[in-house]
Parts: sequence; structure tokens; C-alpha cells
Amino acid sequence: MKAITSSKLDMIRNDINMRLAEYYGDHATQAGAMHEDYAMLWRAMESVGASNGKRLRPYVMLTAYEGLGGDQYDMVLPVAAALEVLHACLLIHDDIIDHDYVRYGQPNVAGQYRARYAHENMSEAERDHYANSAALLAGDLALSGAYELILESSLPAEVKVEVSRALNNMIFAEAGGELLDTEAVFLPFEGVDTMTIAHLKTAVYSFVGPLLIAAILADADDETKHSLEDMGYALGIAYQLADDLLGLFGDEAVTGKSSIGDLKEGKRTFIMQRTFALATPQQLQLLEAVVGREDMTQKQADEVRQIVRDCGALAETKALMSKYAAQAKTALLQVPLKKDAQNELIALIEKAIERQS
Amino acid sequence: MKAITSSKLDMIRNDINMRLAEYYGDHATQAGAMHEDYAMLWRAMESVGASNGKRLRPYVMLTAYEGLGGDQYDMVLPVAAALEVLHACLLIHDDIIDHDYVRYGQPNVAGQYRARYAHENMSEAERDHYANSAALLAGDLALSGAYELILESSLPAEVKVEVSRALNNMIFAEAGGELLDTEAVFLPFEGVDTMTIAHLKTAVYSFVGPLLIAAILADADDETKHSLEDMGYALGIAYQLADDLLGLFGDEAVTGKSSIGDLKEGKRTFIMQRTFALATPQQLQLLEAVVGREDMTQKQADEVRQIVRDCGALAETKALMSKYAAQAKTALLQVPLKKDAQNELIALIEKAIERQS
Repeated sequence: MKAITSSKLDMIRNDINMRLAEYYGDHATQAGAMHEDYAMLWRAMESVGASNGKRLRPYVMLTAYEGLGGDQYDMVLPVAAALEVLHACLLIHDDIIDHDYVRYGQPNVAGQYRARYAHENMSEAERDHYANSAALLAGDLALSGAYELILESSLPAEVKVEVSRALNNMIFAEAGGELLDTEAVFLPFEGVDTMTIAHLKTAVYSFVGPLLIAAILADADDETKHSLEDMGYALGIAYQLADDLLGLFGDEAVTGKSSIGDLKEGKRTFIMQRTFALATPQQLQLLEAVVGREDMTQKQADEVRQIVRDCGALAETKALMSKYAAQAKTALLQVPLKKDAQNELIALIEKAIERQS
Repeated sequence: MKAITSSKLDMIRNDINMRLAEYYGDHATQAGAMHEDYAMLWRAMESVGASNGKRLRPYVMLTAYEGLGGDQYDMVLPVAAALEVLHACLLIHDDIIDHDYVRYGQPNVAGQYRARYAHENMSEAERDHYANSAALLAGDLALSGAYELILESSLPAEVKVEVSRALNNMIFAEAGGELLDTEAVFLPFEGVDTMTIAHLKTAVYSFVGPLLIAAILADADDETKHSLEDMGYALGIAYQLADDLLGLFGDEAVTGKSSIGDLKEGKRTFIMQRTFALATPQQLQLLEAVVGREDMTQKQADEVRQIVRDCGALAETKALMSKYAAQAKTALLQVPLKKDAQNELIALIEKAIERQS
């Protein structure tokens, strides 16, 4: 089953990357007709967005679409690409919020503009601000571009409208989740609604949205949509819990992401929230002394991880994750899917909670 | 004629403001169902966007629409409101780029969040960053919201698609213009393509776009669209030149905007570009010593204004502005418009270059 998933995913990635290279390339050309410096912005977007990323949302959407009996792969491909252009917007804007200048191991849009503006006569802070301004505009263009890809597709007008409305719902949820997540750092661990954030930022945006779009494209009935929604919600929560686990216990060599970063940042994850709730007074003393400190040592991080295990938060989180994964499977079995798509999506659920990156 | 224009504009403003209050209010309610802190973002957007602004773009669109024979005012009103929600996005994001925290004489979205986060334990720079992050998300929501208003309207699906595509074209042009305008400060005056910036940022976004949307809604033919495009382009350039004049010679009490700000900033306007080109070596010395300096005095600003007059740049700019206004009128007369709409739009052109604010 893993082999099927992997080759299918590779094919989708390849198709999406080709469509995105075409999209960004065309717009760089159009922008260049206005001004060469505008073409540069599109080329920066292309360099980050056209060949990187897991393409998870297109994969979810296209697998569900074909599983529901949809057989117009070429016609719906631009919609899958639109999900990635939207994702490019969110990554570009999230990187501004997080002061990040690197994405996929290379300079992101702001990072490229920081280099471009390096020789101008201004302070570092000003240079960063100008670089982030270019990235802000790039993100706006990608947000509008997601709609554009849908609107310019060869789908019937009614379908374009329905899919675009679903896209808007994804954005409405994601931005709300991002706001709450950004503000969470101002709140004590117990004050953060981590489940709502996971629901909005991960479940709706990464799973419910793409699944509902697949249902619209395949002209599925309301009952099917409802089951897909249930599945996407449960899978999204399980996925986020797994993400938090990886952020804490993941192997940096595999995840490509620091496993101390979330702790230093004091990120309000469900597992850390439960750790604070379940810790003994003595454990709590250590947690409060080190979590959220930029100067946390590896030894302190290991002590925190030991507390996460000892207090029962790890076991509780894993149990909850399994519960949601099981819920996702149950909901999935309600969906009238072709067998191979069902198998793919079951494998996706299993992989979501077992993944190492 | 002025009286007609004014009462028509008042009616449109009123209708748009009501529609926008409903839009923002509904979304604050929806956001509140997710989390109270998310509702707050929508209320901040509402406080700035629902009752302020000239409503120029809706006015242009609705006047042209009715002039072209469109008689479904209520049905197209959401599209006019969408232009204002898009405009809210651009103002919110431009204010981030310009480090502005005030809009329409009151705190903008970032300004409201700066106050909200004032009591958190962090540096001023961090607080500003968090406030701007909230504003960044608010702008994204407004950008998507512009599409949403169109998609949720009761227009036929084909029309929704065409109008949304026109909206995307406006965004593509505006973001390009904004990028070039932001980068202009790195270039010497003679190196800036001020006409391309005016074309993208002002003509396409404020006039061509709304006029073409009116034509789509009224099902006008290609020739009409072409003439409207010509008119919008010429009017947009004239409007931008008038804007630059007001930024330099305007009465602050009337414009509500500093008339030394553009000079201190060294803003790359057409009129200043011509001033640098036409100045004598002696005049150039003074210009280079003071333009673009934050500590410029009123006396120095007056000296610069005198040079703008003496070197001929003022006369040249006014002549060019009149030429474009005349071009706009000529193009307008090619459009098969009802008489009262034609009069309204002629008055708009005249007012654009004679306006005091």
C-alpha cells in the first residue's frame, strides 16, 4: 500500500510542479511587460513555490476526487495547483510574522529581497522592512492567484464559483487560527484554546477544505460531504498532535526542523498544555523556569521531555491522537469511495500519526 | 451638475456603508463563533472600513453601470462593496509598509492592536510587530473577502467569474505598482518610471478596473470596453498628477494631509522628477541638499516649491494633467452612455484635476 501511495503522490507532485512553474512563469512574463523589477518579484515567488513542498493538499484533494468517481483529472488540476498557490501565500505571510528568511533550506521571498536590498544605504532594520514589504505584496498576489487559477480553469462557471467559495472558507478559518496562534504566546498555557487553533489552522485548512473541494468537483451529495468533513476534522487534529510531537521528540536529521525550537519559543501546543496541567509542583517549577527561554540548553530540553513522559502528557496525547485517527477512519468508511482511494486515504491517516517528518 | 453628482455620491456612499457594515458585522459574528479574539479582528476591520473613505471606486462603477443601461442596482451593489473591501486590504497592507498606525484620523487595524498589546511584557518593536501581524491577517481576509462578496452575490455564475477575473487583474496591477513605488526610493529621481507606477497603482486599480467591471455587469460590447479603458487610463494619470500636486501645494486644512510629507520622504512623483530634470545647477544644489530629509524646515519646503514653479515643472505638470483630462473626456464621449451618467463622469474628470482634497 505504501508503494502505491508513494508513486501516486510522486505523479501528483510532478503534475502540480509543472502547472505551478507554468503559472509563475507566465506571470513573471506578464509582470515583465510592465517593469523588469516587477518580474523579479514573480521569479522570487517561483523559486520558492514552484518546486518545493509536500503537495499534501493537492494529494488529498485529487485522491478524494478520483475516489468519488471524478474522471476529469486534467480539468481539476488547476484547482489542486490553486491550493498550493494559496499555501505559498500563507507560508510567505507566516514567515513575515515569524521573522523567517529561509524556507525549504533556501532564501524565501523576503530573504531574496534582503539580499537584493543589501547594498542600499540604510539600516538593517529598514532593509528587513523593505524586504518584508516585497514579501507582503508577493503573498497578496499569491492569495489572489489562488482564485485566479480556479477562475481561469475550464470548469463550468457554477463549479468555479462553488470551489472559490470553499477556498474563501479555508482562508477565513486559517487566518483566524493564525491570529489565535500568534496571540497564544501572550496567554498562560492553560488559557490557550489549542483545539480550536488546530481545528482552524490545520483541520479546516489542510483537510476539510481540500476534501470538500474534491466533493464539489465530483458533484458528491451532502451526506458524502458531511462524512468527508468529519474525516477531515478528525484527521486534522490527529495530524496537528503528531506535528507537535515531532516538534518535541522528532529527529532533527529527519524532520529538518529543530526539536528545541518549539520549547524555546514556549509554543502553546496541546502536549505542553497537558504537561503544565499534569506536572507535580516540583516539575512545574522546572517547566516555568526554562520553557519559553531562548537560552534553554539541550540538557534542560531533555529534562522537560522527561517530564512530558513522566507526568503522563505524552501517553495522553498519543492516546488522543489515536482516538482521532480512528475517528477519521470511521468517517472515511462512510464515504462511498473507490477501493484504491479508500486505501490511499487510510494509509494517509496511518502515516499522519506514525510519520517521522 | 455638481449638486447632482454630490447627491448621487451621497446615496451610493450610504448604500455601500450599509452593505459593508453588514458584511463586517456578519463576519465578526461568524468569527466570534470560533473565538472571541477572532471576532475582535473583524470589529477592528469594521471600525476602519465600514464608514470611512470617499467610495470613489463604487461611485465610478455604479455610475458607469447605470449609464450603460444596467438596471439591477441592488444586484450589483455587492460588487461595488467588494471594491471597497479590496481597498480596505490595500490600505491595511500599505499602512504596514508605510509604518502608519492612523487612518481617517483614528487608529487603523495595526494601531488598535498596538493599543491592545500595550500591556504585554515586550519591547516596543515586538509589540509593533505583533500589531502589524494582526493587520497582515486582516488585509488577507479583506482580499479574500472582496472575492467572497462577488461570489456570494445573486449574479449569474458566468458574471461572477468574469467580474472576479477583472478583480484579479486590478490586484495584479496594483501590487506591481506598489512594489515599484516602494522601491522608487532606492533610485535617483530620473531612474523612476513614474508613469508606469501611476498607470498600475492609480489608473488600472481605481478607474480602468471599476469601469471594466461596470461594462461586464452591463454586458457592454468590446468597443465600449475599449473606450472605457482609454478613459480610465487617462483619468487615472490625471488623477495621480493632481494627487502629487496636492501633496506639494495642497492646503493641509483641506486635504487633511501634510504638504511637507512627500518632500521629506523624497517621494518620486512626476512633478518632482521634472523639477530635478529642469532645475538649474544652483537650484539642483538646494534640491539635493534638502529633498528627502526628515528634518526639512517649512522655509526649505517653500524654497523647493518656488523652484518647482520657477523651473517650469509646475506648468508642465499642469499642462500634462489637462492633456490627460481632455483625453479622458474624448474617450468618454465614445462610450454609449445615458446623458446623466455622461455628465456625472465629465464632472468627475473636471473635479479630479480641480480638487482641493
